[in-house]
Amino acid sequence: MERKAALLDIKKVSQSRIHEVDFNNLPFGKVYSDHMMYCDFVDGEWQRPQVVPYGPMQFDPSTKVFHYGQAVFEGMKAFKDDNDQVWLFRPERNFERINKSSKRLAIPEFPKDYFFESLKALITLDHDWVKKGQGNSLYIRPFVIATEKGVAAAPSTSYRFMIITCPAQAYYNKAVKVLFSEKYSRAASGGVGFAKAAGNYGAQFYPTNLAKEKGYEQVIWTDADKHEYLEEAGTMNIFFRINDKLVTAPTNERILKGVTRASVIQLAKDNGIEVEVGPVKVKRIVEAAEKGELKEIFGAGTAATIAQVTGFEYQNKYHDLPEVENPYNVFFKSKLQDIQYNRTEDPHGWRYAID
Amino acid sequence: MERKAALLDIKKVSQSRIHEVDFNNLPFGKVYSDHMMYCDFVDGEWQRPQVVPYGPMQFDPSTKVFHYGQAVFEGMKAFKDDNDQVWLFRPERNFERINKSSKRLAIPEFPKDYFFESLKALITLDHDWVKKGQGNSLYIRPFVIATEKGVAAAPSTSYRFMIITCPAQAYYNKAVKVLFSEKYSRAASGGVGFAKAAGNYGAQFYPTNLAKEKGYEQVIWTDADKHEYLEEAGTMNIFFRINDKLVTAPTNERILKGVTRASVIQLAKDNGIEVEVGPVKVKRIVEAAEKGELKEIFGAGTAATIAQVTGFEYQNKYHDLPEVENPYNVFFKSKLQDIQYNRTEDPHGWRYAID
Ligand SMILES: Cc1ncc(COP(=O)(O)O)c(C=O)c1O
Ligand SMILES: Cc1ncc(COP(=O)(O)O)c(C=O)c1O
Repeated sequence: MERKAALLDIKKVSQSRIHEVDFNNLPFGKVYSDHMMYCDFVDGEWQRPQVVPYGPMQFDPSTKVFHYGQAVFEGMKAFKDDNDQVWLFRPERNFERINKSSKRLAIPEFPKDYFFESLKALITLDHDWVKKGQGNSLYIRPFVIATEKGVAAAPSTSYRFMIITCPAQAYYNKAVKVLFSEKYSRAASGGVGFAKAAGNYGAQFYPTNLAKEKGYEQVIWTDADKHEYLEEAGTMNIFFRINDKLVTAPTNERILKGVTRASVIQLAKDNGIEVEVGPVKVKRIVEAAEKGELKEIFGAGTAATIAQVTGFEYQNKYHDLPEVENPYNVFFKSKLQDIQYNRTEDPHGWRYAID
Repeated sequence: MERKAALLDIKKVSQSRIHEVDFNNLPFGKVYSDHMMYCDFVDGEWQRPQVVPYGPMQFDPSTKVFHYGQAVFEGMKAFKDDNDQVWLFRPERNFERINKSSKRLAIPEFPKDYFFESLKALITLDHDWVKKGQGNSLYIRPFVIATEKGVAAAPSTSYRFMIITCPAQAYYNKAVKVLFSEKYSRAASGGVGFAKAAGNYGAQFYPTNLAKEKGYEQVIWTDADKHEYLEEAGTMNIFFRINDKLVTAPTNERILKGVTRASVIQLAKDNGIEVEVGPVKVKRIVEAAEKGELKEIFGAGTAATIAQVTGFEYQNKYHDLPEVENPYNVFFKSKLQDIQYNRTEDPHGWRYAID
């Protein structure tokens, strides 16, 4: 049962839990695969990664992550093609981004070979947890937490890097209505908005609850200073289609540089769709909506892939979006999924084989 | 060993660890008292608070606090007077503030009687951990963490409220040099800066490390928009003495409303010191320093009480502060400590007896 791979220690489960799982009825993020990886940073070094049965761990109540949110994460997906081959989508970007996030949170960077060897070991062991078929995937959650015991407000001296995985069906089953933020904000200039820092997400829950009470599933965040520019959604970058042009905000220190966003921009270029990457004034979008020039809004992110937005509220006014023929959101979603599920060519080398 | 108080269950340690502790050599936040309190929110309700021996607890790797920083905390101190009576300092403010923080983080508010009964039970049980003598105290850390298992980016349905305590000597032993922030920032307008949200603290570690590399212990944060106004330090509000006037920033949605700050302002008024509470331009402070009108800067917060600042850097220029006679920082520190250690009258009813 125990074996040593080149870079990691692996301890397999004695019995898989897979038969207890109803794969046709999966609430997102509730059921975890048989194995997980953890790797501790102590004495100034990342120790040997450990692949072990998924399960709870002990933490002291003074553990720093509980008090100071010194934690970052990533979100990735594995897809299975018709020949049972499993693929990741541009995982180098997630690897680079988690280290960028870590740096901003004063967390030591993680070695590349540990990251990729762990992913391969986990997905190979839990191969059966990756289900075939449109919309099915294995959601992969790498994360790092500060583990030093003690509440002094200073960076931790020890950390734990973990990877847990869970089978996922389509994250958003339906289109969403959104609220443009006029009061609350997600990130400060000079802050940590560009990082997948844990605290960025908890801070959004309350304003998002307020939006939900008004009937909106998501908030589109605007700049914290004047709320003049549309930035991104809670877990998605945002695209606007004005007539036939695609418009999206540039990434900056407040906005997460999404992998899906970059892929949509590339696919647009590949397919002759004009893209404008630049500050997106709220006023411009509202005016375009009023003139009937705003054809679509959609979100782009790993969890949802592409999420269609059917309407938005701004200054207490709701703007319905039209139904259009051949919508971009459907086009990009199918283009992305064709690559992810290995149903088409991969001209940019986005697929990463797990073998 | 087990008994039921009116509101809580209490399970005492079989043997105290107090004899293992060197009270003359205490790194801050490393040694915890014998007991702790935890109280779970499940099924829409706070359950019965549990006072139990201090120790580690099990958490699933998918626990929300690890991923989304949905967590808030407080910091308080208990002081022992010459008659072995223990006192808290304005604890109602901490109680109100943790619920204000919780609300912003979409965490359910905690009942007042649970909070105060738990504090009394803990401090009574661990009475010997509160040491007499100037600078000695018991640091009290109430905190709340999101405990639901599952990585869906939505508020947790379950929470754990905890109180842990640790004996503390003076937090900062020496005066500090500070850096005025010109690039990084702590909080966004419309964000969570006014809350003691876990993520606010982890986000400061990296810029503070950069300041430390330049020889500065702390950063004084400026507004995220233009870095024109001085706001606060990482765990302290900031006061400037210009000639004989005390100047401090108003609290707002970006700045924590400190208990020590409010007490300093009141003590200033009581003692005929003029106080100006209003936006503090960086430019004004630099000019006052250049003219020799800036007599003092000091921080005010529970951990440090009052921390003298001996100089600051702004735009690559270091400004040394003069040595003054009868400094305000010493005056306020001794006024506060006289009240905290029950050595003087308490005209505003700030002391809270633990009996
Ligand atoms: C804040 C934020 N924006 C955008 C995204 C989309 O990024 P990606 O496409 O890399 O998943 C995410 C989620 O990953 C996110 O958390
Ligand atoms: C950001 C921040 N500012 C100021 C303070 C000072 O507040 P108080 O005096 O209530 O301890 C603290 C610490 O508690 C803090 O975390």
